Amino acid sequence: MLGNFTYCNPTKLYFGQDALGGLNEELPKYGKNVLLVYGGGSIKKNGIYDKVVSVLKANGKEIFEDAGVMPNPTVEKLNDGIERAKAAKADLILAVGGGSVCDYAKAVSVSVHCNDDAWEKYFIRFDDVTCNIIPVGCVLTMVGTGSEMNGGSVITNHAQKLKIGHVFGENVFPKFSILNPEFTFTVPKYQMISGIYDIMSHILEQYFSGTDDNTSDYIMEGLLRSLIRSANTAVENPADYEARSNIMWTATWALNTLVAKGKTTDWMVHMLGQAVAAHTDATHGMTLAAVTMPYYKYILPYGTAKFARYAVNVWNVNPLGKTDTQIAYEGLSAMEEWMKNIGLAMSIAELGATKDMLDGMVKSTLVMDGGYKVMNEKDIRAVLNASF
Amino acid sequence: MLGNFTYCNPTKLYFGQDALGGLNEELPKYGKNVLLVYGGGSIKKNGIYDKVVSVLKANGKEIFEDAGVMPNPTVEKLNDGIERAKAAKADLILAVGGGSVCDYAKAVSVSVHCNDDAWEKYFIRFDDVTCNIIPVGCVLTMVGTGSEMNGGSVITNHAQKLKIGHVFGENVFPKFSILNPEFTFTVPKYQMISGIYDIMSHILEQYFSGTDDNTSDYIMEGLLRSLIRSANTAVENPADYEARSNIMWTATWALNTLVAKGKTTDWMVHMLGQAVAAHTDATHGMTLAAVTMPYYKYILPYGTAKFARYAVNVWNVNPLGKTDTQIAYEGLSAMEEWMKNIGLAMSIAELGATKDMLDGMVKSTLVMDGGYKVMNEKDIRAVLNASF
Repeated sequence: MLGNFTYCNPTKLYFGQDALGGLNEELPKYGKNVLLVYGGGSIKKNGIYDKVVSVLKANGKEIFEDAGVMPNPTVEKLNDGIERAKAAKADLILAVGGGSVCDYAKAVSVSVHCNDDAWEKYFIRFDDVTCNIIPVGCVLTMVGTGSEMNGGSVITNHAQKLKIGHVFGENVFPKFSILNPEFTFTVPKYQMISGIYDIMSHILEQYFSGTDDNTSDYIMEGLLRSLIRSANTAVENPADYEARSNIMWTATWALNTLVAKGKTTDWMVHMLGQAVAAHTDATHGMTLAAVTMPYYKYILPYGTAKFARYAVNVWNVNPLGKTDTQIAYEGLSAMEEWMKNIGLAMSIAELGATKDMLDGMVKSTLVMDGGYKVMNEKDIRAVLNASF
Repeated sequence: MLGNFTYCNPTKLYFGQDALGGLNEELPKYGKNVLLVYGGGSIKKNGIYDKVVSVLKANGKEIFEDAGVMPNPTVEKLNDGIERAKAAKADLILAVGGGSVCDYAKAVSVSVHCNDDAWEKYFIRFDDVTCNIIPVGCVLTMVGTGSEMNGGSVITNHAQKLKIGHVFGENVFPKFSILNPEFTFTVPKYQMISGIYDIMSHILEQYFSGTDDNTSDYIMEGLLRSLIRSANTAVENPADYEARSNIMWTATWALNTLVAKGKTTDWMVHMLGQAVAAHTDATHGMTLAAVTMPYYKYILPYGTAKFARYAVNVWNVNPLGKTDTQIAYEGLSAMEEWMKNIGLAMSIAELGATKDMLDGMVKSTLVMDGGYKVMNEKDIRAVLNASF
């Protein structure tokens, strides 16, 4: 493992078809006023809204609504949510939705009792949280981001063409999350597949870093193999409960801090994807998929041994008689074929990006330095250019 | 994953060469009186005692001592410890040692404010905890049991020839654990190897259960591969920090409830091993090793597909042209060879068991029903008989 680190993840998870019952154990711990945060209203159509409201009422809660959280939550919506939470004197923020809704709820939770501008404080200056935090709970209806058990929160500023994530500490993690795989069944297949790739990218961006042979690498190989297997089943039959539940559980453990322990972590696929999303508003996981192959092919020479290990341990590439470079490329080819087969976007042009956006996307790509190569502007331009 | 479950593990871990500094963050949360629990005094020889006491004093704590916790803590020692904790009016129990010391500290913590007989209440009747709990922290000096991040506590009653474990809920988990791999370097090689097998058995006893293709199975395969690799390095060179740190981290995640999610879990190797230990007082991990091959060969026909999967995914057995049964036995052979190579006990006779103990060991083997075969007395006798 090497290095010094701490680990603590206090989020309580309720998993399975009866998970919503966990609300009855959690709600009594908080005051009367609940800010119910959700997205475009699909939870009203599929009945989840009614179920949640019914449990809230049975627990004597006063419900304040904050609907309309969009897939890439904006800074304007965030500021609106902060005012709503203030007006409600919210004792608990209950996010019902996917990662965007959970992310947004966390950003609201750390801003209500804070006088600074939230965007400037957390997403430009990356300040620590210094004010009181409103507790957050999540009822997950879409799988991928891992937001249900971490401190991540990504907000988009269209005016500034920036989509930026802040990773808050464990005091901002959801106090509890309700994970019922069936609540994700009505998500359109495109979104399900996008979520699957988001999970995969979370794992890979931690995996492709560092040189030591770390227990985290082995856990990630296990998660990847599980994800690939269950994804194949779920793409064939989205109603397969076992596959969907495995995917949901993998998503949580892909990004709840565990597998990053002892790793430097890369995150450039997310930085590139977020730059694309800031210009196109495309679906998160698809932006990651569309830049993945150009990025990994670009950095492969700097981390050949790890790409070769990935090929053998995750994609069952037979290494006999081959060089590490050959094995590594064979692994990426297997991955590329799988990505096409399950229906992922393989170019940013598909997602609405045009060549005139290139300068802007290059400029809004943040550079992280934990991967096998620290990217400069020329590198970023080359990768994005190859992503069309 | 299937099924409904909850997950919450609130233990805070401080990992690495600087981990002891975590005490400075944790101690201020608790009152003045600290019961310092440890074993036979090896921590005085290797300097860990002085380091811990120095941090306790710097934090203004009053230290009360409870030394002499033995490798298989006895009910007599437990009752002694309860009285010591009462007399000290302990605000915190700080366990400095291996799993036995941590286990013991938890048993004391749930018994001090309780009028019932601790053995009868928790280890015979398996009652819930209904009284106040004294918080426990651990400074780990030996790796294997996972006690640093779970609710497990195993106590031995020599008079009754019973060694029984109670798994307490998350309110009994250590509040924090200090995991410095270097603190385990002075452990004799025999104990290190015994601990390695304890970890392996924890994983296998959860892995060899159930039929669904669960994310937990994949995580466990990753942990097993990491463990085998680092064990090979550590047996060769016990001072290899990276290997020892990977082993320490794997131990924690092998038995902190995560990989049991969605599994029925077996635990018969532990039940058999504990029966052997109750009669011989042999080292825990060695008792597990000595009954493993006879047990797994006995149950293989009832879980052949899983044993075949194990052979391929953990021991790299080439499955081409072989039946599942052939693959499965080839996997166990590879495991057996590895066990011998790293120096594990391969028979209970080596550990001091004699044939006249057989009836008693059969009688004191508890039966668990989550594995591929529910054992009856005849089965247990056959396995123990084959373990000589």
